This record gives sequence, structure tokens and C-alpha cells, in this order.
Amino acid sequence: MNCEILAVGTELLMGEIVNTDAQMIAQGLNEHGFNVYWQTVVGDNPDRLRAALETAKSRADILITTGGLGPTADDLTKETVAEVFGRPLKMDEVQLARLKERMGPKMTPNNEKQAMLPENCTVLVNDWGTAPGCAFEADGCHVIMLPGPPRECTPMFQLRALPYLEQLCGGVIGSRYVKIFGQGESSVEYLTRPLADSLENVTMAPYAKEGECELRITARAETKEAALALCDPVVEQVKAILGDKVYGVDVSSLEEVVVRGLEARGMTIACAESCTGGLIAKRITDVSGASGVFGYGCVTYWNEAKMGLLGVSPQTIEQHTEVSAQCALEMARGVRRLAGASVGISTTGYAGPTGGTEENPVGTVYIGLSWEGGETVFRPDRRYMRTREQVRRHAASHALDLVRREVLNL
Amino acid sequence: MNCEILAVGTELLMGEIVNTDAQMIAQGLNEHGFNVYWQTVVGDNPDRLRAALETAKSRADILITTGGLGPTADDLTKETVAEVFGRPLKMDEVQLARLKERMGPKMTPNNEKQAMLPENCTVLVNDWGTAPGCAFEADGCHVIMLPGPPRECTPMFQLRALPYLEQLCGGVIGSRYVKIFGQGESSVEYLTRPLADSLENVTMAPYAKEGECELRITARAETKEAALALCDPVVEQVKAILGDKVYGVDVSSLEEVVVRGLEARGMTIACAESCTGGLIAKRITDVSGASGVFGYGCVTYWNEAKMGLLGVSPQTIEQHTEVSAQCALEMARGVRRLAGASVGISTTGYAGPTGGTEENPVGTVYIGLSWEGGETVFRPDRRYMRTREQVRRHAASHALDLVRREVLNL
Repeated sequence: MNCEILAVGTELLMGEIVNTDAQMIAQGLNEHGFNVYWQTVVGDNPDRLRAALETAKSRADILITTGGLGPTADDLTKETVAEVFGRPLKMDEVQLARLKERMGPKMTPNNEKQAMLPENCTVLVNDWGTAPGCAFEADGCHVIMLPGPPRECTPMFQLRALPYLEQLCGGVIGSRYVKIFGQGESSVEYLTRPLADSLENVTMAPYAKEGECELRITARAETKEAALALCDPVVEQVKAILGDKVYGVDVSSLEEVVVRGLEARGMTIACAESCTGGLIAKRITDVSGASGVFGYGCVTYWNEAKMGLLGVSPQTIEQHTEVSAQCALEMARGVRRLAGASVGISTTGYAGPTGGTEENPVGTVYIGLSWEGGETVFRPDRRYMRTREQVRRHAASHALDLVRREVLNL
Repeated sequence: MNCEILAVGTELLMGEIVNTDAQMIAQGLNEHGFNVYWQTVVGDNPDRLRAALETAKSRADILITTGGLGPTADDLTKETVAEVFGRPLKMDEVQLARLKERMGPKMTPNNEKQAMLPENCTVLVNDWGTAPGCAFEADGCHVIMLPGPPRECTPMFQLRALPYLEQLCGGVIGSRYVKIFGQGESSVEYLTRPLADSLENVTMAPYAKEGECELRITARAETKEAALALCDPVVEQVKAILGDKVYGVDVSSLEEVVVRGLEARGMTIACAESCTGGLIAKRITDVSGASGVFGYGCVTYWNEAKMGLLGVSPQTIEQHTEVSAQCALEMARGVRRLAGASVGISTTGYAGPTGGTEENPVGTVYIGLSWEGGETVFRPDRRYMRTREQVRRHAASHALDLVRREVLNL
């Protein structure tokens, strides 16, 4: 079935916000086997909205609209859809009561309009805002209306619209997300292509995400459990192909894997950061509950700080400079000792845009690791680190990944 | 003149990438006084692309396409535009030579296609990639074709397409960006509304940006300098209205203002972070050249670290807990002393989702500041800090803002 996504909102046309709803919906539809052929954006203008709806009606099997379900006179998606598809609006008493309860004394007469819905539609209950969505079929076209704000649109699409669409075509989708660090999207695709081509009921697609890669493995079956059961052997095959580049399945981030892994082993970590300037500590403490494993971090941007706080020896800096394997190692040892932690991790390098030497140009980073089981230094490939932001982000990711591989053996 | 933005690319329809080009172009067009009425996305499919072009031709004065200018068979924007607008493609020898020089031995025969351009078009030279853009007028419609990758599309639009469009309507645009912290978008709009309504040749629009607000002031004149000269008195009026909530004009971030301000005064800063967990240090070191003012940061998540590294007294923690004005102050003093810095800044609080007490629930943050001129503690309003991420981001912003206001008097 071919789909069109129609976003209604002047703020999108003005470029005040970016149309992330369309991406989220397009991705979800494609994952579930629906083809998206058109995306359109129009403003809060009845004539242009009517024209866009007439066009969509003539070419799409499924039309999903976002936005224009609010209480003001500007919000006219439902009214115009009702007109174009010949499905007059009537007051839905259940939704009106719900709205009154939700809004309490803040309810104004114009809010009531939000409970007006097309006759005989399927109501998509909105637990995340005031405007209910709805779905109906008319003239061979399935129309689904969703609210515009992403914090409402996303759960409304995932938990209300998708189940409605799954009913239409039978079966449900289950997906596993394989998270990969240290292997680019195109290389992941190349390595897993033979496997992907050999699969019959399971699909596989890699996505690049901020210096990482995510491989989505998806199957359709009677139940979600059955779909996931089809995915699981493929997950194992992917792991066999990509080895320890896979840092987790269905996990949110590298830092979460590290924090949970340390937690499970009763271990703690401390970090000493030069070029990453606090980013490793920031990412560790992004994870709720990080205080169970993390207590101390030092940002030692200056050599005085590396020597004074961490005990890096002046000779090391004199002989090897502060951007060296030796310095990284002494920093990792130093912060581990200072914090009394199981693991010490450090970074030192040239983030740019200025600085660096002929031997160690901008992008050179040494990561030091010291733990009960030993110590090591890692120097990431400079090729993927061109901007200051990339150098810092990649260096922090490599540091977390080093802990995962060397210490946690995950 | 009314505009349509047509993006061509299956990866957009699949939801693999979000259509940031459309937002960037829509915002630029609106700033320059062009109305965007339609945005459309189609895939790399000749029939649907042709249909979309026919529709756009019938309703738009200006049509901007993005994507589909690459060397492969999938890239068919130029071919289809040529057909629909009756402007056959011919080889542009200047662009071909440029392409050969740029690509060197990597040049393959299919790359040559990128130098094929519509007869008598204005070439938009691409200094950021291999595909040149172009512009022409046919049947009363101005057509501009731009490459899809945002790192090419953005400069091509700003530096090539906009000057072409400005020629069409006479005059150029100049804008000032007033950066505001501590006052929300709606409140900024409310406070500046009377001024905005009183302006004749200057427009003003607020934008919410990650917990901050940006007010864009724009004018049109013969030259950019003349346009900016029209904006400047309005900037002063805005500053008079918003007072020290304005942290800068045409600057990139709060952290940049702080780093440059310290630098100008020959001062240095050190930070001691608990709930922000490294985010302040990370933001300071995001600024290139931060090493001139920043050498030491401590992330002291545990009380042992606060006491051991920063010298917070056990009595303070016992009497007031670690989330207290007293502890924040001792942390700021401690890190300033440790680093020998002009300014010490600290954070301690409950970032959530768990933790907190009845008196100090999740979202409570104390920011400590110690400098040559004195010391102070600030407790930001909890209402804007609901999620863990918001608490941490706002707390870091407030800390930087406190340094700006109290120490730098900016």
C-alpha cells in the first residue's frame, strides 16, 4: 500500500521547526512494509490544505496527516479533511469528558472543538496531549490524523496508528537493534550483505548514528514474540560476522553498556580528560544511576593540572610531550589512584582546529586505560576525526569502548 | 513571490534522514521576504518527480529543488526538470574542466553527467562538492536546483541561491541575532511586541533554542551595511527592554561569551561539578582556544571526592547535605584554590529521575561562584527543569550565565 504524509503547519513552512514527524513516520511505515511515495507540507491555509488533500486522496492508499488538531481557529485539519472526504464532524462525548477531566479549570470553550471527530471514525486516544487523533476509510483511502508536536506525534504514531495499520495487513512487526561501534555504515552493509540477501522473512538495514552504526533487524509474524524469535538467530549471525564491534543489542548507548557492566561487576571508574574536556564524565553521568560506579573525574587541560592532580611526571612531558602514550598512561594510573577506582581512563590529544605537531597532527589522541587486570594505550584512527567536535566525540566514544572491550569483555 | 521547495531523494521518503535542507531554505526565504507555500518530498522516481514538477510549475513563482544532482542513474532531477520546463541539457565545458580538476584520477565517465546543465542557465558554482547547481526562468517560474547533502546545500543556498534571488527583487537583507538566556520565547515575544509593532522597515522574530532564545532582527536595504545600520538601533532598544538577559549579539553561545570575556580580562576559570557531571567543562572546552582560560575541572560526584579533592568540610555535608548552598560555595572556593584560578564555579543538585528530598526535590540545583570580587550562590528556578537532561543542561547554562553577569559584567 502506498502512503502519503501530509504535515500541516505554518511553522514548518517558515522553517521555524524541522519536520521530524515526517521522518519518524516514514521510518516506521517503511519498517512495517508500507511504501511512502509522497511527503507534503502546507500551512494553515484552507485553500492550499484542501488542494493538498484532494491530491493525496487521488493518489494514496494511506494518508497520514500531522498537525492542525489544536483548539484555535488556525487549526483546521479536521474540518478540511471532513469536507474533502465527506465525513462530517460530530461531538464525541467520551473524548469531551476526557478533555474536561484533563484540562480542569483551564478548559475554555474553544477547547471543545478538539473533541469534534469524523462520524464513525476509529478514535486514537491521546495520552500525551489534549487533541485526540482518528482514523477512517473513505473512497478507498485510509486517513489517519495525528497531532503535530513530536512528543505527542511519536507515541500516537507508534502506539495508536501503527496497530491500526497492522490490523489492515495482518501480523505485527518485531525488531532488534544491534549497536555497533568502530565500523562504519557502508562497511557494516558490505560485511552483512550476503547474510541480508540470504534472509527470507527477516529484513536488515544499517543506519549511521553520530559516529556509530545501528543495524535494525525486523520480522513480521502473528505476535511480537514470534517476530522477535525470527530475528534472534539473525542477531547471532550478525554478531559472528562483526565480532566485538557489536557493543549491545537493544541498548541505548555505549555509556549505558559501560555503566551497567561496571555495576554488575561491582567495579568503579574514574576519568582524567584532556582533549575530551569533560565529555567522558558527561556521558557517563548522562546515565541515570551512574553514581553507583562513578565518583571522580578530572579535566586536566593544562600540564600543571596533569602533574599536580594526577601525578604525571615532568620528565614524561618533557621527553614525550603531553600528547603521548606515556602521558595518557600516567594520567589513567593517576586518576585511578586518586579516586581509588577499579578502572582509570584518560584522554590526551589535539582536538584542533589549531595545535598539533608534524608527528602528531590535529586529530591525534591517546587513550590510556589502567585497571586491576593491566594497562593499555589506544590511539584511534585519525581519518574519522576531522572537526574539533568529531575529535572530541570519537575520542570519548573510543575511551568508553576500550573499557567495554578490555575491562568488561562485553 | 511564492515559493515551493521540492526535495528529491528516496532516503528522505524512507525516513533515513530528516529534511533539514527544507527547514534551512524555508527559514532563509522567509527572512528574505519570500513566502514558502509548499514543501514536497518525492523519491528518485521519474514519473512522480515529473508530476511534482508539473504541479510546482503551475503554482509557484520560485521553485527550489534539492537533491538528485549526483552522477548515478538514480539522480534524475536535472533531466526531469529539463523535460518539464523545456530547457534541454548541454555540456558546460567550464564545469566539466572544474570537475576533472577537482576529482583527478577518481573521475569516472558517469561523473561527466554532473557538468550537463540546462541551456542558458545561471551556473551556481559548487565549492563544497562535485555537483554544480543552476538557476533559470521559464514560463514565469524561477527554478533553482541545489545539491542535497546539507554540507553542500547550506552554503549553496546561502551564498549562491540567495544572491540570485536578491537580484530578482532588489536590495539585500541584513540581520542581527540577539542571544538571550533566562527569558523564554513567549515572554520575549510579549515584552518586545510593542517595539515590533512600531517598526516599519525592520522585522523581529524570536526563536526558542535549547533552553535559550534568539531574537532575529532583519532589515532590507541597498547594501548589507545599510541594512545592518537599520537593525542596530533596534538592537539597542531590545537590550533596553530585556536588560542583562541579553548575553550577546551575533555570538555563537554563552560559553563563547564567557571564554572570550575571561580571555580579554586575563582571567582564568576552574569548575567543580556534581550534578552537571562534566558538562560545564565540556561546554567551556567546546570553544576553540579555551585552554587560554581553562586548565582544571573536577567532577566530584561522590562526597568523598568533594571533601578529598575540593576540601568541602564533613560538617557542611553532615549539617546541610551535599545539595546545599554551603556545599556549593565550598566547592567553588575549593576548586578555585586547587587550580589557582581567578574564578571557581560549582554545581550540586538532584538531576533525577530518582533522588531528592522533600525540601529539595529533583531539579534542585545550587550553583556556587567564588572570584576575586566576592562569592555568591544561585538556585535556578526548578520549573524549567523536568527531565534529567534538562536539569543538567539548564544548570550548566545558569553556571556560565552567572559568571557572565557577576564576574564579567557582560
